[in-house]
Amino acid sequence: MKRKALSNVHSDNLYEQIYDYIIERIGRGVWGAHDKLPSIRTLATEFNVHRLTVFKAYQLLKQNKKVYVKDKSGYYVMPENMLLIDSQQNPIISAHVQESSLSEIHQVRADYQFSIALLDPNLLPNHYFSEYIKKVFNLYPKVLGTYSSIQGDPELREALSRYFTDQSHFYLTPDELLITSGSQQAIDLIARGLIKPRDTVFLERPTYSPAIDVFRRQGANIIPIEIHPHGYQLEQVEGLMREHKPRLFYLNPTFHNPTGYTVPAEQRKTLVEMANKYQCLLIEDDPYPDIYFEKKPPLPFFSYDTAGCVIYIRSFSKYIAPGLSIAAVACRPSIMKYLLNTKSLSDSGTPLLNQKIFLHYFFSERLQKHVEKLRIALEIRRNIMEEELSATGWKWATPMGGFNLWMKLPESTPMDRLLEKSIEKSISFVPGSIFDSLKEHQSWIRMSYSYLNETQLRDGLQRFVHIYHSLTSTQI
Amino acid sequence: MKRKALSNVHSDNLYEQIYDYIIERIGRGVWGAHDKLPSIRTLATEFNVHRLTVFKAYQLLKQNKKVYVKDKSGYYVMPENMLLIDSQQNPIISAHVQESSLSEIHQVRADYQFSIALLDPNLLPNHYFSEYIKKVFNLYPKVLGTYSSIQGDPELREALSRYFTDQSHFYLTPDELLITSGSQQAIDLIARGLIKPRDTVFLERPTYSPAIDVFRRQGANIIPIEIHPHGYQLEQVEGLMREHKPRLFYLNPTFHNPTGYTVPAEQRKTLVEMANKYQCLLIEDDPYPDIYFEKKPPLPFFSYDTAGCVIYIRSFSKYIAPGLSIAAVACRPSIMKYLLNTKSLSDSGTPLLNQKIFLHYFFSERLQKHVEKLRIALEIRRNIMEEELSATGWKWATPMGGFNLWMKLPESTPMDRLLEKSIEKSISFVPGSIFDSLKEHQSWIRMSYSYLNETQLRDGLQRFVHIYHSLTSTQI
Repeated sequence: MKRKALSNVHSDNLYEQIYDYIIERIGRGVWGAHDKLPSIRTLATEFNVHRLTVFKAYQLLKQNKKVYVKDKSGYYVMPENMLLIDSQQNPIISAHVQESSLSEIHQVRADYQFSIALLDPNLLPNHYFSEYIKKVFNLYPKVLGTYSSIQGDPELREALSRYFTDQSHFYLTPDELLITSGSQQAIDLIARGLIKPRDTVFLERPTYSPAIDVFRRQGANIIPIEIHPHGYQLEQVEGLMREHKPRLFYLNPTFHNPTGYTVPAEQRKTLVEMANKYQCLLIEDDPYPDIYFEKKPPLPFFSYDTAGCVIYIRSFSKYIAPGLSIAAVACRPSIMKYLLNTKSLSDSGTPLLNQKIFLHYFFSERLQKHVEKLRIALEIRRNIMEEELSATGWKWATPMGGFNLWMKLPESTPMDRLLEKSIEKSISFVPGSIFDSLKEHQSWIRMSYSYLNETQLRDGLQRFVHIYHSLTSTQI
Repeated sequence: MKRKALSNVHSDNLYEQIYDYIIERIGRGVWGAHDKLPSIRTLATEFNVHRLTVFKAYQLLKQNKKVYVKDKSGYYVMPENMLLIDSQQNPIISAHVQESSLSEIHQVRADYQFSIALLDPNLLPNHYFSEYIKKVFNLYPKVLGTYSSIQGDPELREALSRYFTDQSHFYLTPDELLITSGSQQAIDLIARGLIKPRDTVFLERPTYSPAIDVFRRQGANIIPIEIHPHGYQLEQVEGLMREHKPRLFYLNPTFHNPTGYTVPAEQRKTLVEMANKYQCLLIEDDPYPDIYFEKKPPLPFFSYDTAGCVIYIRSFSKYIAPGLSIAAVACRPSIMKYLLNTKSLSDSGTPLLNQKIFLHYFFSERLQKHVEKLRIALEIRRNIMEEELSATGWKWATPMGGFNLWMKLPESTPMDRLLEKSIEKSISFVPGSIFDSLKEHQSWIRMSYSYLNETQLRDGLQRFVHIYHSLTSTQI
C-alpha cells in the first residue's frame, strides 16, 4: 500500500541519491552490521527533502535487504551487506558475502540425498564415454593444445543452431549462440552484462536460489512473481511490469525448479508480447526440456519471440554430462555483444575439449536413444515418490517432467527440527524458504527423485515419513 | 601536480558524491556519449560546494576514463562508459562495453602470428594425451556424470599443495587452494570478490591488458606502476602506496607479460613487507615460472609472505594444456572465503574431467621431462628472434624466460601503418599501447617467439623488418 502511494510522488530521483548515500556509507563501514541508521526525520533535515523521500529510500533499502526494521524503533544495517573487515589479517578486504544455503545443504553427506536435483550418475552411459573421447582425440589431435574462442567452438555452434531450429523452431545462426561453462555462468554473464545496481529484476517465486544470489549481488531490486501449477497470473504480471519497468524477468518455465510446474503455451505467447511491450527481457532457463513424461512440453518462449526480447539458456549438464559443464545461450546480436564482452573478462572461453566431447556425444544416435530410457527411468522414480508419500496428506502438483517434487506440508510442521532430525538420520531435502527471495514458503519442501535409485527412494521416503510423524505426534 | 594539491583538501567525500551523481546520470543515459557535461562552476553552484570539490570529482572521472577533456572547452562523456541504448531492438539494454583490443588482434588470421603469446601446439606431447584420458576414465568411470565441488577436486588440491610446498616453499594446506578455469577467471574472481567501485588498484605499466579491462569494469581507480628490466622503483611505489592506499597491486613479476622482465628476489622481499605495512594485497600472476632459460627465477612473492597479503595465481594453460583451462589460486583462509563465494556465483566449479586429466598429466614423470625440452626449444626460438632483429637497432632487454620480446622501435615509427601493412602481409604483432592503462607506449611492440616454429620465425621476422624499412624509408 505504502509503496504504491509513494510511486506517485515524483521527487526527481532524490530518493535514489539518499539510497546511494546510505549504501556508500554502509559499504565503507561507517555504519556496521546491526547499527541503527539515522531516523527519517534526521535525514530529511540533513538533505533538506520531504520525509516521504527519505521513507522511499528506506523502503527500497529494506526491499533490497540492505536494512531491516526492528520493533518499529528504526532502521538497522543488515549484516550481509556490510563491508566485512577481517581485522586479523587483512583489514582492507571487503566484499558482499551471500550465504548460498543451497550449496550448504548440498555439502551435507547423507545416504538419502533428496536435496540433490541431479541425475543419478548410474543413469548415464558411462562405459560409452571413453569411445567419444577417443574419437575426439583422433579427430582433433591438438585439442588440448588449443584455446577455445570466446564465443565457443564454431562447429558446435553450427550443430546446435541446426538442432534448435529443427527441434524448437528457433531460426538461429551460429553467431546467435554463445557456449558457456554451464548455466550458472550463463546467468552470471547475463546479470553482469545487462544489470546495473538498482535495476529491477523479476524472479519467479519460488525460484532457483543461485539466481537470487547472482541478481542480488549485482545490486538489482528483486520483485517476486508467483508461479502456480498452471503458470503466472498474467494480469498481475502486467500490472507489475507497468509499475516497475523491470529490465528483465528470469524464468524457468518448463518443469520449473523447484516446483516442477510448466507454463502453458498460450501464456508463453502472451508473456512474450507483454515483455516486448514493456521492453523487459525474458531470460528463459531451460535445463531439461527432454526429460518429459507422457508428452513434450510446449515450445520455448524463444520460439514465440520475433522482437529479440528473449534470451534462452539451454543447459546440458543436468541430463547429458554434469562433468562437462556445457550450456548454450541463444540471443540476438544486439544482446550477444554484451554477453561476449562479459565472457571475455570471465574466462578465455569454455574449454575446447569439453565442447568437442559434448558435440560428438550429444549428437550421437546412441545418446538420443538413451534420453528415451532416461525419461522412463525418471517417470518410474517420480511414481515411486508419489506412491510412498500418498498417505501423508501433503500437497503437490504431479510434475510432468524434470527432477523435483515440490510439496506443501502442514503449516504446523516444525521445519527446522524436521531438517535437523532428517540429517541426523542421513536424509537430506531442501526447505522451501531457500528458493524464496522473501525467505517465506516455510512449510514447503523440495525433494528430488532423480538422484537415488528405486530402492533408495522407497527406503529413504519411508524413513522420512517416519521422522515426520515422530516429530509431529510428540508435538501434539 | 594538481591532483596532489587537491588530495590535501578534505571535503568529507563530497567530491565522491558528485562523482557518483555524474556516473549515475551517465549510466541512465541522461548524458550520452560525447555530450558536454555541466561546467565546474554550474555544478559547484548546484551542489553548493567549493569549485575545487567539483574539480576533484572531474579529475577522478577523467582518471577513470569516464570523461574526457576537449580543447580545454570542458568535460565530455567518454563513449565506452555510456549506457548503450540499442533503440532498434532492446531500448532497455545497458552495459559497459570495453574494447579488448588484444582479443581483436588475436582474431586476425595471419601466417606469422607474432601477436600470440601461446605455446606452439606442436610443442605439446599431443600423442600422449589420450593415454592420460584413458587412465582417467579407468580410475573415475563416472567422471562425466559428476559435478565438481566449487573449490576444486580435493585430490588435485592435495597434490598441488604438496607440489607448491616442495617447489616454492609455500606451506599450504589443500584448503588454501582454489581451482579456477584458467587465470582469466582467477583475476576476475579476485576483482569481483575484493574490489568495489572507486577502490584504488595498482597495475604494472605495461601490463597484461585483460587485467586492465577486468579492474576497470569493476570500477577501480587504476594507478600505473612502471616496471623496468630490473623491477620497480620501490621508493616511488612506497610513496604511491602511502598516498593512494591501494586495495591491491596486480603484478606479474616473473617473465612479465609483455616485457619479459623479472623482479629480483630482494625487491620481492621488500615489496611484501611494504604491502603488509600499507595493507595492500599483492596479486601475483605466475603463468610460466617453469619456462626459464639458464637459471630458475627467484621464489614467488608468496614464499616471502607471512602475513597473508599475497594471492598467488598459477596458471597451467600457457605451457601444459591450454585446452584444459586449469589454474590454481593460493591464498589464506580469510581471503579464500570471498573467492569461494564469487566462484559459486560464476559457475558450478571447474569441470571435474579437466581437473582429473590435468592431475594425472601434470604429475607424470613424462611431463616433467617434457618441460625440460620445452625450455630448450623456446630458448632457441628466443635466440632466433634476437638474431633476426639484431641489425634493426631496436632496443630490448633479453628475456630470461617466458614467451615474449618487448621492443622499443624509433619514436618516429608510424605504428598504425606498420600494423596495417604487416597484417596485409599476413604478419601480426601487438602494439605496446594495448598493454598500457594510459594508452601510451606508442613506439613499443610485443612479439612472441613461442607460437611459430623456427623457419616461420626467421621468414616472418625478415618480412617484418622489410616492411618496417619500406615504411620508414619512404617517410624520410
